Amino acid sequence: MKNPVERLSEKLLKGDSQKAALVISGINRRYLTEFESSAGALLVTTKGAWLLLDFRYAEAATYKAKNAEVVLFKSLLESVKNLVTDNGIKEVFLEAATLPYAQAMSFKKLFEEAGAEAVLDNQLDDAIKALRIIKSPYEVSKIEAAQEITDAAYSYILNKVKPGVTERDMAVELEFFMKKQGAEDLAFSTIFVAGKNGSQCHGVPSDNVVNKGDFVTIDMGAKLDGYHSDMTRTFAVGYVTDEQRDVYNTVLKAHLAAMAAVKPGLKCNSIDKIARDIIETPYPGTFGHGLGHGVGFEIHEWPAFNFRDETIIEPGMVITDEPGIYIAGKFGVRIEDMLLVTEDGCRSLTKSDKELLIL
Amino acid sequence: MKNPVERLSEKLLKGDSQKAALVISGINRRYLTEFESSAGALLVTTKGAWLLLDFRYAEAATYKAKNAEVVLFKSLLESVKNLVTDNGIKEVFLEAATLPYAQAMSFKKLFEEAGAEAVLDNQLDDAIKALRIIKSPYEVSKIEAAQEITDAAYSYILNKVKPGVTERDMAVELEFFMKKQGAEDLAFSTIFVAGKNGSQCHGVPSDNVVNKGDFVTIDMGAKLDGYHSDMTRTFAVGYVTDEQRDVYNTVLKAHLAAMAAVKPGLKCNSIDKIARDIIETPYPGTFGHGLGHGVGFEIHEWPAFNFRDETIIEPGMVITDEPGIYIAGKFGVRIEDMLLVTEDGCRSLTKSDKELLIL
Repeated sequence: MKNPVERLSEKLLKGDSQKAALVISGINRRYLTEFESSAGALLVTTKGAWLLLDFRYAEAATYKAKNAEVVLFKSLLESVKNLVTDNGIKEVFLEAATLPYAQAMSFKKLFEEAGAEAVLDNQLDDAIKALRIIKSPYEVSKIEAAQEITDAAYSYILNKVKPGVTERDMAVELEFFMKKQGAEDLAFSTIFVAGKNGSQCHGVPSDNVVNKGDFVTIDMGAKLDGYHSDMTRTFAVGYVTDEQRDVYNTVLKAHLAAMAAVKPGLKCNSIDKIARDIIETPYPGTFGHGLGHGVGFEIHEWPAFNFRDETIIEPGMVITDEPGIYIAGKFGVRIEDMLLVTEDGCRSLTKSDKELLIL
Repeated sequence: MKNPVERLSEKLLKGDSQKAALVISGINRRYLTEFESSAGALLVTTKGAWLLLDFRYAEAATYKAKNAEVVLFKSLLESVKNLVTDNGIKEVFLEAATLPYAQAMSFKKLFEEAGAEAVLDNQLDDAIKALRIIKSPYEVSKIEAAQEITDAAYSYILNKVKPGVTERDMAVELEFFMKKQGAEDLAFSTIFVAGKNGSQCHGVPSDNVVNKGDFVTIDMGAKLDGYHSDMTRTFAVGYVTDEQRDVYNTVLKAHLAAMAAVKPGLKCNSIDKIARDIIETPYPGTFGHGLGHGVGFEIHEWPAFNFRDETIIEPGMVITDEPGIYIAGKFGVRIEDMLLVTEDGCRSLTKSDKELLIL
């Protein structure tokens, strides 16, 4: 299989030696070269690709970066301009979706001086998205490795949660565990919320103490070699009321129904509808977010299970399935797995149990 | 003192009720409202300010957000358009420095439909920068509190570092300690590099083991209530060679000379030059980055101590002083404090010792 820079070149430049792509986004640069830096640029042409970095990163990149030749720059604009001129480039695709307006205007002016035109539509964004949205077996193995750490962290914390612990301490314990297990970072800020804090679906762990009768919701993930995992579990401490049990089972039913429905050829929004219909009848207005999102090199990528997204589901996509019910001022429940779309359905990449657990 | 939304309104809109500012950047939104969310918008007019959030954040924001009225939106574009129309706005300033090109174009079109014009120059960016570059006593106290955690973490790790430990394990220990002490997050990915890895000034902690004779460089910080700290120390393990000692003392001399020189009225680049001249004579070409950068609501903000930045130093600025010498394939040394500019000089916000330490 060709490397992602070669595939981008083929897809976008189609062999035209006067065309080039300038990748500025740090995430896209890392995806394409496997090298992370806080600043830099990747210029892709049909003749070759150059990763332009400053003094802070150039040495490390010569050892670690793939798929491009490393160039140390003093002035990024100058270096880009020289490469454009030297290679006879007449058209440069830019990332309109992420490139800041002012920077886009600087490059536009720069290219004009070099006799080239900036292309600021969505062609480059779409070409990279088309690569990233379908995960290779290598990428799936990375996501699974990140999820393995996450599953292990969940088992670990279940032995620590008891009445009296704070949300914040538990969140920190989870993070430490994931880092110790080799995560390069958290996939996102860990959510650990108990009791009525659970009704804020993006609540921040606080000094709030876990009490008997609370639902606890943990939404967490690890990042490994640039790839993310994402999982949510809700469990009870001590006991549950009938209402809590019914809400939990409704969310679980929606989650499982969505999982059973996923298969190539369907539209993403049809999966959202299946889960939503199950929740909306008994608990109208309590499921205020989409059912799921793509996960990979970013924690939120494409496609999305929501009412708008009509993307056709394809093998190799990794999408979360995370219905929730949030009852303001009382509690919340959410259950989330990552699903890998296969030839004839899907496979969950998440191993943790999801039957109602009462600690 | 007026709140930052009011000050932004005064500075930028100057009482003109037909003008508004639309703040999209998450960092600027949090700076202005003290509320963090991964998406949303803040519309500032002379009559009032609205923080537009989706379902995930609106409930929490009604408790926590300051200086603006919280609006729950279903469609951000629709909500912004309605507010623009209802308030008779004819001109909307946008953040050209950070707003992605495609999003800028969407807002431009939206405003045209509402009979208003998008302003895509640097006026809004500059107005927010002018607020953020000068730290209030409250903001300084937040940065100091973040640095206190960082100093404590440094003392803590000095008791753990010994021959045989890995860079990665030490970095994780530091992170866990800072989180346990109340940091909301790391200010940035901790750098912990030993021996020849120290010559990469932005090296990533690896499984490399600390050995006798190594220089260890730690560059780390904590984030607290949105404010960052940033500190670097290099120390030796076991013993040092004459070359190591000389390099260390040269960096320290440059660091102290810069600190002694900082005072209001001077240009930022003059401070960089003072440190650079001390290093360049004995160790030419080994100090490849700027001397320092502003720190506050972002880890890298304004102004910068480098050869380009001619900003006049003013009281209330917080800027790092971090010269370094990097000898490729051998070792590196960097020493960094955060300096708060005072009426007649500066005060270091960093308490950790910086004489050469041999563990």
